[in-house]
Amino acid sequence: MEQKKVESLAQAVLEKIFVPLEASGRHVHVTKEQAIALFGHDLTPARELSQPGQFLAKERVTVTGPKGEFQNVAVLGPARKGAQVEISLTDGRTLGITPPVRLSGDTKESPGCTLTGTQGSVAIPEGVIAAQRHIHLHPQDAVRFQVRDKQVVKLQTFTDRPAVFEEVVVRVSPDFSSAVHLDYDEANACGFRSGDWGRILS
Amino acid sequence: MEQKKVESLAQAVLEKIFVPLEASGRHVHVTKEQAIALFGHDLTPARELSQPGQFLAKERVTVTGPKGEFQNVAVLGPARKGAQVEISLTDGRTLGITPPVRLSGDTKESPGCTLTGTQGSVAIPEGVIAAQRHIHLHPQDAVRFQVRDKQVVKLQTFTDRPAVFEEVVVRVSPDFSSAVHLDYDEANACGFRSGDWGRILS
Repeated sequence: MEQKKVESLAQAVLEKIFVPLEASGRHVHVTKEQAIALFGHDLTPARELSQPGQFLAKERVTVTGPKGEFQNVAVLGPARKGAQVEISLTDGRTLGITPPVRLSGDTKESPGCTLTGTQGSVAIPEGVIAAQRHIHLHPQDAVRFQVRDKQVVKLQTFTDRPAVFEEVVVRVSPDFSSAVHLDYDEANACGFRSGDWGRILS
Repeated sequence: MEQKKVESLAQAVLEKIFVPLEASGRHVHVTKEQAIALFGHDLTPARELSQPGQFLAKERVTVTGPKGEFQNVAVLGPARKGAQVEISLTDGRTLGITPPVRLSGDTKESPGCTLTGTQGSVAIPEGVIAAQRHIHLHPQDAVRFQVRDKQVVKLQTFTDRPAVFEEVVVRVSPDFSSAVHLDYDEANACGFRSGDWGRILS
């Protein structure tokens, strides 16, 4: 077989058994009103992300906590109904904030922080979380892996420092491109490199 | 049974089945000559560490890499035969250094950095590593857990974000107090808090 055919076959087999790993760096979601307060206009796309419809914005913010700040933090669009700041526990130590480990959207009674853009600052009373590790699955892949939305599974990583992450939440939606989302603490703990794969253990 | 008796019994049972987890922050080991160059004198103990004979020094250093620095970094004593700088992969991104994941003492062909103390600076040509996760065991505990020196095991953490770390190296020595040593990437990835325990899976 030609080398190219072998490679595309290998890729197809990989995709049937494994899920690609992705590491999410610290990032911010804002409302349209907050975007206008921060930048004078709504978010403008810089490039598409792996999840369909989501984009990295051209705009960047400074995230400030009681003990420190991060400059030049990524803002993801489109604008949402509520602000959300996703950081790692390591980031939390720098900022002086202890973020609860939550699924995206679950920001109730989480700590706040200050966001600063080119045109102004916004103090958000809550919204700082550490994203709970989760797996985005397209419904076809959920059937293949025999898991359902909100199911909690274990995930084995085939990485430099292999690990099994327990309590990983599966999210299923036709809007999703199938991928495991780890934060940078988890990515570094397992020695993740771009292109690595994981396996769902249920 | 009195509450106190119950607690001490529970502690004894815990110690028979589990190993305490410890998180190691970034730190530096130096030679006596380097200590003198950095501080004008050998290291002076500030407090004892869990491993017998090891101490946190009163002296602190700045660790500088091509892209950034960390100030006020812990120096551990007593002085060693060679310098070693133990950082996490996350720290490596800040410094602009990619440390290899190695066991302590295995610094061959690892990157260097600059250390700065109160009296001077020392450029070390190699010695920057990310400590490979490992378990220190007293020989009595090695017998109990049926593992031997240099054996590679899996370790299950009973923590907020439970995980199984694979490829954990066991080190056995009568000089050791039994404990799992994780770096801060690993500690944060599993949601470690002081007082947490792990279980060796062989």
